[in-house]
Parts: sequence; structure tokens; C-alpha cells
Amino acid sequence: MPKPDLLEFFDAPSDDPFVIEHVSEEFTSVCPKTGHPDFGNVTLRYCPAAVCVELKSLKLYYQSFRNEGIFYEAVTNRIRDDLATAMSPAWLQIITDWKGRGGIRSRIIATYGDVPQAWARG
Amino acid sequence: MPKPDLLEFFDAPSDDPFVIEHVSEEFTSVCPKTGHPDFGNVTLRYCPAAVCVELKSLKLYYQSFRNEGIFYEAVTNRIRDDLATAMSPAWLQIITDWKGRGGIRSRIIATYGDVPQAWARG
Amino acid sequence: MPKPDLLEFFDAPSDDPFVIEHVSEEFTSVCPKTGHPDFGNVTLRYCPAAVCVELKSLKLYYQSFRNEGIFYEAVTNRIRDDLATAMSPAWLQIITDWKGRGGIRSRIIATYGDVPQAWARG
Amino acid sequence: MPKPDLLEFFDAPSDDPFVIEHVSEEFTSVCPKTGHPDFGNVTLRYCPAAVCVELKSLKLYYQSFRNEGIFYEAVTNRIRDDLATAMSPAWLQIITDWKGRGGIRSRIIATYGDVPQAWARG
Amino acid sequence: MPKPDLLEFFDAPSDDPFVIEHVSEEFTSVCPKTGHPDFGNVTLRYCPAAVCVELKSLKLYYQSFRNEGIFYEAVTNRIRDDLATAMSPAWLQIITDWKGRGGIRSRIIATYGDVPQAWARG
Amino acid sequence: MPKPDLLEFFDAPSDDPFVIEHVSEEFTSVCPKTGHPDFGNVTLRYCPAAVCVELKSLKLYYQSFRNEGIFYEAVTNRIRDDLATAMSPAWLQIITDWKGRGGIRSRIIATYGDVPQAWARG
Amino acid sequence: MPKPDLLEFFDAPSDDPFVIEHVSEEFTSVCPKTGHPDFGNVTLRYCPAAVCVELKSLKLYYQSFRNEGIFYEAVTNRIRDDLATAMSPAWLQIITDWKGRGGIRSRIIATYGDVPQAWARG
Amino acid sequence: MPKPDLLEFFDAPSDDPFVIEHVSEEFTSVCPKTGHPDFGNVTLRYCPAAVCVELKSLKLYYQSFRNEGIFYEAVTNRIRDDLATAMSPAWLQIITDWKGRGGIRSRIIATYGDVPQAWARG
Amino acid sequence: MPKPDLLEFFDAPSDDPFVIEHVSEEFTSVCPKTGHPDFGNVTLRYCPAAVCVELKSLKLYYQSFRNEGIFYEAVTNRIRDDLATAMSPAWLQIITDWKGRGGIRSRIIATYGDVPQAWARG
Amino acid sequence: MPKPDLLEFFDAPSDDPFVIEHVSEEFTSVCPKTGHPDFGNVTLRYCPAAVCVELKSLKLYYQSFRNEGIFYEAVTNRIRDDLATAMSPAWLQIITDWKGRGGIRSRIIATYGDVPQAWARG
Repeated sequence: MPKPDLLEFFDAPSDDPFVIEHVSEEFTSVCPKTGHPDFGNVTLRYCPAAVCVELKSLKLYYQSFRNEGIFYEAVTNRIRDDLATAMSPAWLQIITDWKGRGGIRSRIIATYGDVPQAWARG
Repeated sequence: MPKPDLLEFFDAPSDDPFVIEHVSEEFTSVCPKTGHPDFGNVTLRYCPAAVCVELKSLKLYYQSFRNEGIFYEAVTNRIRDDLATAMSPAWLQIITDWKGRGGIRSRIIATYGDVPQAWARG
Repeated sequence: MPKPDLLEFFDAPSDDPFVIEHVSEEFTSVCPKTGHPDFGNVTLRYCPAAVCVELKSLKLYYQSFRNEGIFYEAVTNRIRDDLATAMSPAWLQIITDWKGRGGIRSRIIATYGDVPQAWARG
Repeated sequence: MPKPDLLEFFDAPSDDPFVIEHVSEEFTSVCPKTGHPDFGNVTLRYCPAAVCVELKSLKLYYQSFRNEGIFYEAVTNRIRDDLATAMSPAWLQIITDWKGRGGIRSRIIATYGDVPQAWARG
Repeated sequence: MPKPDLLEFFDAPSDDPFVIEHVSEEFTSVCPKTGHPDFGNVTLRYCPAAVCVELKSLKLYYQSFRNEGIFYEAVTNRIRDDLATAMSPAWLQIITDWKGRGGIRSRIIATYGDVPQAWARG
Repeated sequence: MPKPDLLEFFDAPSDDPFVIEHVSEEFTSVCPKTGHPDFGNVTLRYCPAAVCVELKSLKLYYQSFRNEGIFYEAVTNRIRDDLATAMSPAWLQIITDWKGRGGIRSRIIATYGDVPQAWARG
Repeated sequence: MPKPDLLEFFDAPSDDPFVIEHVSEEFTSVCPKTGHPDFGNVTLRYCPAAVCVELKSLKLYYQSFRNEGIFYEAVTNRIRDDLATAMSPAWLQIITDWKGRGGIRSRIIATYGDVPQAWARG
Repeated sequence: MPKPDLLEFFDAPSDDPFVIEHVSEEFTSVCPKTGHPDFGNVTLRYCPAAVCVELKSLKLYYQSFRNEGIFYEAVTNRIRDDLATAMSPAWLQIITDWKGRGGIRSRIIATYGDVPQAWARG
Repeated sequence: MPKPDLLEFFDAPSDDPFVIEHVSEEFTSVCPKTGHPDFGNVTLRYCPAAVCVELKSLKLYYQSFRNEGIFYEAVTNRIRDDLATAMSPAWLQIITDWKGRGGIRSRIIATYGDVPQAWARG
Repeated sequence: MPKPDLLEFFDAPSDDPFVIEHVSEEFTSVCPKTGHPDFGNVTLRYCPAAVCVELKSLKLYYQSFRNEGIFYEAVTNRIRDDLATAMSPAWLQIITDWKGRGGIRSRIIATYGDVPQAWARG
């Protein structure tokens, strides 16, 4: 069960806009169709408005998907929604990169707010 | 015989535009001129309007080219047409990367709708 | 249907022992259990006794597995048997490297005669 | 709970000794000390005596460690024991490669029988 | 002697604009100053207007430079001219990448028509 | 204790705008939460207005963070502030890339002035 | 001050000999000649006799070199001595890989007991 | 002593604008502060107006810096000035990439005229 | 026409045995069957007895194969014979690595004298 | 003029045999035939008997070849001789890797004493 209430935040150390990127290489959830585990990387990129997400709490939040049956596309949008709601950042981008299934590997990109053109590609 | 009717779809999990990319590293068809098999990667990238393509059905659709005699350029445009017709996405891009023939390796890029500039290069 | 009779040979250009290696990156057969295609690399390494295998005929022989339902382990031993029988080389080694299935990628190594220690690992 | 009874086997397709290697890049278990998930690759390498392990059953067996609290060293020896007991291979080697913890990444190698010198290093 | 008359063409399989890229890794000509052979890669990228270049004929055309004494810069412009004249594409780009000479490796980019910004860098 | 007074400068050798990039692969500070050391790369990129930073003094300045307890985000903004204040460059960008913690690796980008679009991504 | 008393151990989970490798990519000490920090990787490889080193305690032990003035060669031999004394393993190998100084990068290998030939090179 | 008079030129083989890039991986000069040699790559990229630089003369010109005491920033601007003056190209860009000093590696980019946006980053 | 008389030699600078390796990445000959050019790398490795081959003469000797119709296996044995005859080295090894033909890339290894075990694999 | 008297040494920090490797990526000398500079890497690997070479003095010794006209083979044997004479190590190995000349890159390996089999290949 994804648990956004695990997320903790701290005040951004600068009023100037800056960019933060966290890449988790240890994400796993479960395919709701086959029941087999899915494995992927999750990249969070954002420009904080007032608060930054605390790293260990982000890790625990990601771990809460471990036994959740949920499709790639839904995982990505769900994380985007949870983090955007909790942080109200200037902008935010979630990129998930999934290991191959049946010879096909996948990437999903979801965004919140105006992601600068430089990152439009993920 | 390419069989677009193998394709299945599910509702996009979000109304916000987002991007989906599936890279198949196991595509093969047959060169209509020499009768020898061709091997390549096929990348599908799109922004769903209402539906997303189901991954296993996409794999089966790609497999339906296995014994089809068809040129690189035609494969690429055919996949673009089949998927654009079936999904009516906001935009869609097909990139095929073919292993070398006679010391020359090839890439073909076909698009539907307005592919954002970030992906113009494939 | 694997067709070893497609294989052609030419006289080795030297009586001194030497080593020949051919790596095919375009091998495909079919999984007899699921009916899905398998993709892999096939490495042939041998020391000719009297004859060398002709490259184009080797390619055609490999292509004859295209629609054959056969397991990884059997493909590897079958190619080893066909080539060893047809060439009677001083020694011969077949290594197949298969793309991932279910998150697991595989390698099979079969040999004929005394493969020198330097290649024992494939 | 690791479930070796999930493992299935089929007859080796050749009486000549040959080598089989399966690399799973999607292994996860749980650290019994911290409760956090561990992620790693598991390589199985063996020379079959009479039977080969079926690939899908191997995947399911690995998945049975998903929520098990168990140290790196114990995982590796446990898999070695389970597979050696079930297959009685000529020889067998298990190599686990774990993602970094606290800036340290680890590899464990356990063996059964006489692993040829070529693979002594894993 | 470069022989553009070796080039053959076929009708583009789609009226929608699409992009074709052929990378030859086996180009060689001769330095007119030293008489030594030069080796390089030649990338052809274009958007067909009506016809596409046939792959084998392109290979033969490139081979016709084999014993030609011609500088890097001239090779690149010559290929651009020959292909642009013969195909009248929407746009076309030739990129040559040359192996090092005297510790210096070189790249030349010549274009015809309006190459989209995404490929401006070659 | 970060010591910006260690920084030394020399006159820019040209009045034309140009770009300077220094990548330090040996940055370390201390996590204020856990007390464990953090390790990262620090990239400084800038267009000098009048002065350039002297390389050895930059190294000593970076070393002054060695035993400082300070978060990733604060390090990045602090270095940006110290260098922008001391050099008054046309523009400046600081990118920190941190080794993984708990399976998550991070990058922070802070800027001063109008960083050209080409470097917007860091 | 290197503190070997930080090291903790647990019983080896198997009586069969097996090999454990821990690679720390975050080692730093201080050059006693210049006072500048040195950065390197430390690889510990061993076959346990009775006990295994606990991972977090190993990390803390390595951290105790952080402000120690000590040469590459001495670091390597010191870690070898501390771990061999504390664990009495069947054999043990320490490899340190140091980032470049003055355009020269270094590797030191120290051993205890009979390291198998497969790892003689580090 | 840098000797721009070593540079030789030939007429551009086309009136259409095209781009030429020469990457020298064997540049060395001397640090005026320490007297130690510096090593780097020098990339010259330009669009010829009327003439192209001859490759061997460019190599000799670069060699004339071999025993010159000169800073990174000054080398880059000096080469830019010498080549721009001698060739009057449509535009020109010099990028120097220097091996690490004290754990810091550097890149300097100097330009002449309007370098197209595609190369703004060097 | 291969011209071994182009080869020049100089006295080995030491009486102690040592090893010399020259890798040419610019070898080309012609396939006698198809008339198409072949491209490959040629590695010469040897322990001189009395003389060493002069580098430029080796290059010219390799260039003399440029328009020769000759199979991979014959090229390799021919170079081995020519160099062994001309130099009478303690031992010598020729390795040719050929770019792919029909999806198959090849390597041939021919030797003279007792090549030490360390290089048995090429 | 190579100056072995620049070399300085310190006592080995252990009586147990251990291995030291220093890789210099910034070696340059001059080709006595063409007068052009040569560039390469020099690897020194040894087991100290009583003393170790001090790193900065090794760098200065290598720099003393900067303007020396000397062939690849002679450089390698010269460094071997100078270091073996000055250090009397248990064994020592010098490997030089030279950037390409005329499309050919070279490696020379010279040894002193009994280099263990693990490093026989350089």
C-alpha cells in the first residue's frame, strides 16, 4: 500500500530556484496481471518552492510499493501525485525505467507544473 | 502477416499528459529482396489520449512480422500507422534501429501528430 | 528444421593448427513451451583439422532454426553435434548467449574434443 | 520463505558434459538487521549430471526469497544447498552481487563439487 | 572514381515525412597528399521527398571511392552533392568521422536543404 | 568550516566571453543527520567577468568542507554563493553529484545569473 | 586513528569454504607528506574460517582512517593486518585503488594466507 | 613558443557552409606556476569562409606549445585568436579538455563569431 | 599483392626477452568470392629474437593487401608466415578481427613458436 | 635526458611480499626518426624487496624523457633497467601503451625477475 504519509520534508536552504534530482535504483512493485514482481529505477526531479523531501523518508515511501499490484503507468502517475501534493514544488518530474518484460523495456514520464525544456525528455 | 488486431488497450491512468516509451530489442522480419532475416530494435514513444497499449499484446503484434517480407522503411511506417489508428494518441513516434547489412546499419523514424521537440531526434 | 546439409566447407589454408571464431548476433529459434521466439548470439570456435566452414553456409544453417521449437540447451548441443560431425575438427566449442526471459539471461557452453584451457570459460 | 519445492527439472539433452549459466538480475530479499530490502544479481552456473533446472521454476524459487529476512552470505549458501540437493549436478556455483549498502557493494561465491579452474573467480 | 550512377532508388513507402539514417562503418579512400589510405564512417541522414536510396547500391557507390585520392572535406561535399542531386530529398545531411591521423581525428558535416535543428550537430 | 577566503583569483586572459569548467571528483563532507561522510563530485561552470578562480585555491576551498556537517542541498547553494560573491562572474553554475545513500543517488544544481540554455540541464 | 576494535563479526553460515568480497568506493585518508586528502577504493576479499565481518562495522573501521596521515602502501598493509588478526580467515586479500596524483594512479595488493591463483592479480 | 606561422590553408571545396571538427588528443604545454607539464585534448570546430586549415600544419602548430609555460585559459584563447585571425572563418570554437590536477579536471571553451546553438555547449 | 619485402627491421634494444604488440585498426582486403572489401583489425604480438619490425614498414606491408582477393583465414596465416620468416622471432602471434558479414563477425588466430599461455586466447 | 638519479625511495612498510602498481597516463617522449612527439601510458608493477619508489620522484623521472629522442621499445627497456637497478625489487614489470601512429597502436612489456603468472600478460 503506497504510503505518502511516510514522506518528510525540510525547508529549502535557498530562496533562489534550484534543481534536485534523486535516482532510486531499487524500486520494486508487483504486476497486477501476472503477480510477478516488476523492477525499475525511479527518478524524481524537482525545483522546490518551500520544502525539500528528506532522503530516507523518500526511500521508505518507495518501499511501500513493494507488495502493491500496480501497472508501470499507474506507479508513475501515483508517485507524481503524492509528491506534488505533499511538496507543492515549482515543478516536478517522475521518470520510471523498467527492466525488460518479454523482451520489451519501458520508460514512463509524468510531470507537474512547467518542467523546463532542458528536461522535457526526462 | 502483421496483425494489428492483436493489439489490446487499457484506459490511461491519468488525464494529465504523460509519455510512455517501450523498447523492443527482439524484432525480426524478412528482407523481401534477399529473403534473409532482418533484426532490429523497435522503440514506440507516445503520449496517450485515452488509452495505453497493453505490453504483451504489443509483443504479439511485433511477432506477427516474423516471417513477413518487408523493407525497413515500410516496417516503420506500417507500425506507426497501425498504432496511431488503433490508439489515436496525442502524438506517437516509431524508431527502428537495424543491425548492419553489408557494413551499413540503419535507423528509421516515423511520427504521428506533434512530437515535442525534445524527441525530434528519435 | 535445422539443416546441417546446408553447411559447406573449404580446405584449411595451413597445416599449422590455428583458431577460428565466428560470432553470430542474429540467432533466433522458438521456445517449445511458450511458442514465443528466443533470441541469442551463437559463438563457434574451433581448430580445423582439414576443413573450415564457409561463412555464408554457416549463416544459412543458423537460419534453419528460425521456426524450430527447441530449448536453449538443446540448440547448443545440436549445433555442436552437427558441426563436429561435419568438420571433424581438432576441437570445437559452441557458446550461446540468450536474451533475458523473466529477468533471467542464460549462456550454454558445449564442446567437442580438447578445448584448450584458455577458452575453457567460453 | 525460500521454497525449493518450486524447482522443476528436465532431462539434460546430452550425455557429454556441458555448462549452463543463468543470471537473474532481479533478486531481492530483506536485511534481517535493518528490515530494509536488499537487491542483487544471482548467477547460477553448473554442469548437469542428469537434469537441468527449468527456467521459469528457477524464477519462482528466487521470488520466494522476496520477503525473507536473510543475510547475503546465508542467501548464497542456501541457494547453493537447495540446488545442489535437488539436481546433484557434476558441479555448481552460486555468485551473488549485491548493490551498495553504506558505500560498500558485496559479492559472495559458494560452490558445490569441483568447479573447473576457469570459473574459480566466479 | 566515385560513381553516382551506381545509386538506385525506390519509392518512399509513405507520403508523411519521415527520417532515414544509414551509417557505413567501412569507408575508405586515399589521401591525395601522402598516398596513404584514409578510413572513416559515413552517416547519411535524410527526409525523402519521393524516393529512398537502395541500401546495396549505396554500399557500391561508397566502394567506388576506395582508390580515389580525395581530401576529407571534399569526400563529404561530394557525397552530399551526388545524393542530393540524385534524390532531391526534403533535406539531407552527410557526416564523415575519420580515424586519427598524426594524433588528430576529424569530423566533417555537410548539408542540403533545411536540416531540422534536432540534427544540427550531426 | 567552509573557508571562502582560501579562494584566489587571476585576471581573465581575454575580454571575449568564454566558459570555464572545473570538475572535482574528490569532494567529501559529513551528513549532519547521521554523522557519516558523504562523497560526491562538484562541477563549477562559469563565464568570467573579470577574474578566474585559481585551481589550487579552489581545491583547498573544497577541502575546507571535509569535516563540516552539511546537507547536499546546502553544500551546493553555499558553494554557489561563495564563488558568485567572490568572482562576480557573468554567470555561474554549481552541480553536485552524490554517491548513493540507501540506494538513492542525488544531483543538485544551483545557478547564479543567466546560465545559457545549453547548460540548463547541468 | 585506525580503530580495529570497531570491527564486529558473526558466525559464517556454512562450513564449506566460500568467498566474500566487499568493495568500498568511499575511502579517504590524508597524505602524510602534503597534508592533502587521498581518495580510493578498498576491496576486501576473503574465505572465512569461522567468522565473517559485519558490513556496517567494516564501514566504521574504514571511516576511522579519514583524518589519518598515512601512505598508500601503509594503509593497505595496515588493513590487511587488522582484519587478518581479528578474523583469522583461511585467506584474505586487500586491494586499494587510488585516484590519480600528479597524473599517476596507483593500486596496492596485500595478502594473508594462500590466496587462490584465480585472484592472484587482485 | 606558439608559432601560428606554421599553419597552412587550402581552399574550401564547397561554397555551401559546412562544419569541420579536428580533435587532437595529444596536446601538451607547461604549467607556468609549477613547471610541470599539462596534458589535454584540443577540439577545433569551425565553418570555413574561404579556406580550411591543413591537418599536418595544425599538428605542428599545436606542437609549438610543447615547452611553453601557459595557463589552460590562456592556451584556449590563444589558439582561438591565432586560428580566427589566420582563417577568418564564418565561426570557430576551441574546446580544451585537461587531465586532472589535484583531483580536478578542467574544460575551457572559447569562440569566435556566431557559433550555432547546437554547439553552444562545446 | 602482399609484399613482405616492404618490411624493415631494427636491432632489438635489449637481450632480455620482452613482448611487443602492434594493433592495426585499418586493415582491408577483398573477399575473393564476392569481390566486396573486407575490413578488420590485425594484431601482431611477438617476442623478438634479434630484430624488431619497423612500424612504418609494417603499415606499408599491411597496405599491400588492399586490393588482394583473399579469405580471412588465408590473410592471417599469410601474415604469420611472412613475419615469422623475416624476423625469426622467439614466438609470434597474429590475430585478425573482422567486421560482421551477414550478421557474423570473425576472429582468426595463428601462431609461430611457443606463445606463452598468457596469450593463448589471443 | 632520462635522469634515474631523480628517483627517491622509502622503506617498504611490510616484510610480507605485496604488489604495487603505478599507472602514469601522461608520458611523452620524441620519435627519433620523425622528430614528432610520442604519447603513452607507462605502468610500473613490482613487488618491493626493501624499498618502494616515491611517487613524485617517479613523476619527475618520467618527465625527464620529455624531449628525449627514443623508440618505444628502448623507452620500455630503459625504464625497466633504471628502476630494477635502483630498487632491486623481488620482481618488476614495465608496460608502455602508445597512442596510434599511422593507424597502429603499440604496447611493449619488459620484465625483471620472476613476474608471477597472473601478470604475465601485462
